[in-house]
Amino acid sequence: MPTIRTVQWKSGEVVLIDQRVLPGKEIYRKYKTVESLAKAIETMVVRGAPAIGVAAAFGVRLAAERSKAKDIEKLRKDILSAAGRLAETRPTAVNLFWALDRMRKTASSDFATAKNLVKAVAAQAQAIYEEDLSASRALSEHGANLIRQGARVLTHCNAGALATAGDYGTALGVLKAAHLQGKSITVYADETRPFLQGARLTAWELRKENIPAYLITDSMAGHLISRGDIDAIVVGADRIAANGDAANKIGTYTLSVLAKEHGIPFYIAAPLSTVDLNTPTGKEIPIEERHEGEVTHVHGKRLAPKGMRVRNPAFDVTPAANIAAIVTEAGIARAPYTESLRKLKEGK
Amino acid sequence: MPTIRTVQWKSGEVVLIDQRVLPGKEIYRKYKTVESLAKAIETMVVRGAPAIGVAAAFGVRLAAERSKAKDIEKLRKDILSAAGRLAETRPTAVNLFWALDRMRKTASSDFATAKNLVKAVAAQAQAIYEEDLSASRALSEHGANLIRQGARVLTHCNAGALATAGDYGTALGVLKAAHLQGKSITVYADETRPFLQGARLTAWELRKENIPAYLITDSMAGHLISRGDIDAIVVGADRIAANGDAANKIGTYTLSVLAKEHGIPFYIAAPLSTVDLNTPTGKEIPIEERHEGEVTHVHGKRLAPKGMRVRNPAFDVTPAANIAAIVTEAGIARAPYTESLRKLKEGK
Repeated sequence: MPTIRTVQWKSGEVVLIDQRVLPGKEIYRKYKTVESLAKAIETMVVRGAPAIGVAAAFGVRLAAERSKAKDIEKLRKDILSAAGRLAETRPTAVNLFWALDRMRKTASSDFATAKNLVKAVAAQAQAIYEEDLSASRALSEHGANLIRQGARVLTHCNAGALATAGDYGTALGVLKAAHLQGKSITVYADETRPFLQGARLTAWELRKENIPAYLITDSMAGHLISRGDIDAIVVGADRIAANGDAANKIGTYTLSVLAKEHGIPFYIAAPLSTVDLNTPTGKEIPIEERHEGEVTHVHGKRLAPKGMRVRNPAFDVTPAANIAAIVTEAGIARAPYTESLRKLKEGK
Repeated sequence: MPTIRTVQWKSGEVVLIDQRVLPGKEIYRKYKTVESLAKAIETMVVRGAPAIGVAAAFGVRLAAERSKAKDIEKLRKDILSAAGRLAETRPTAVNLFWALDRMRKTASSDFATAKNLVKAVAAQAQAIYEEDLSASRALSEHGANLIRQGARVLTHCNAGALATAGDYGTALGVLKAAHLQGKSITVYADETRPFLQGARLTAWELRKENIPAYLITDSMAGHLISRGDIDAIVVGADRIAANGDAANKIGTYTLSVLAKEHGIPFYIAAPLSTVDLNTPTGKEIPIEERHEGEVTHVHGKRLAPKGMRVRNPAFDVTPAANIAAIVTEAGIARAPYTESLRKLKEGK
């Protein structure tokens, strides 16, 4: 059982740790309906590409188990309608669509009875959950080999247990694994405006794991890198295109440019469910623009004057050329990514 | 009289608009003692390199006018002691030391009576105030010539009226002047964590002047620049070394790297009082590290978990090589800056 339980299926309900109120409060919320779960994804009760995928899979299970349909076709319709609603929640992270595709395929298979279909859907959701936990652990251990003794490593946003089903996480999982190997690392965590995943969630995980760490504002990374205070950068991803271009939390692209400028390695850590061979390059990745209040307010308090217009793109795209390696559960991909990613993805 | 009055001398007191509570509240605070004014500078009631210089000059005037010393040597001692206290408030912005040097020189000159010394000190402080207003206006008009019709210009922190004695400002002054020339510009303002000078102060000035603008988080600049949404970057400075290296609010260096990466011009706008020929390069500029609470809390509300360590460098250094031009009241300096800055500074 993971030490941090981000997404769980429990007694017929989806249970999420509420990431909007961490680290001040540790609240677990229960969801019985697809609509309430979809809203939870939209409002970032749960966030992080792999975690969203697992939550959506459980959402489809909710629809299957709670459907009142007696015949199998009506049940299938309920399930597909739930998948459709969940697909509308967030556009950028591909794990959502990957998980929903798996759930849809299961729901579209032949079964003798509605009961069997429900069982298969439940089993598929459970498989997605368990695979996510084991993928995180495996990629964390692969990635830890890239981190040298005493390294000072910068990360952005939260790519920890809270961004996955639980336990390790992706980029932060790599750092946890390096720490467990006794490598005496120091983590620098960008606070990650506007949603402050770094200050709130990554800092919370780092404290829980007792990993030596500093919190900085996003604007401080360049200064520290230019002074030689950072040895490597490791971040997660929300979608990796076939050519290795990677969408991740807004601010990631800038870090990759700074890494290039100063000759330090910039790594992406993500499960293969984040690699989308159907998206040729980063240009085709849709970038979600979220509402203005995330920028103008913090904790409900207004920062900016009324009437000030805002841009709020939630993600940016780092070109493959700026990425030293992509760490997955099946191993470490290097450029040219078009070949290495396809090989890892298809070898799976 | 400037429309925004940042620092004023009024009825024997220094009056500051409280920049910690803008834009929510417009509060003017009065200071009668050097110690209270020094604390106001330390806690950022007033901030911005030129504004700090003007406030410090008025602080020395306070000491002169309120000294109970009857003989001229005791008066001089009071004045120099005030200058010493004010010099300890902030280490990076050189305008503070430049203004205090001018005040000290005046106080060290020969006068027949203590009364005459007080008058000369008052006149010198007033001159520093008035020169700052006219320098801002002049450099704003020079700089506006660098901004083309329809330009989308990014700025960082607040280098507006609130960073100077009032009225125009430096980098934001350039944009105000371009706007007044009818150039249909759009400003992108970085919110500028941790103190949020962009979200609170620059946004407030932009709204007051009705300049079309968007507020973004610091982490969004790279994305917008990479998409071709930004045509130029203009920022202020806290100290410009003899070789053109410029210290400015943390996050500035990163913008200069992004500008280089994408081939857009990166401009510094600052009065010559910010140019410090006694500091050879950026390496010799002391970088203030401020307290952790600025990063862990916003508006008194805790963001990060307790016990999380923080780094909080308040400034960074942009190398001269990344700067397309330095706009001053005496004209626009171009590389090699060692020559062009000396020429402008000594020609003054």
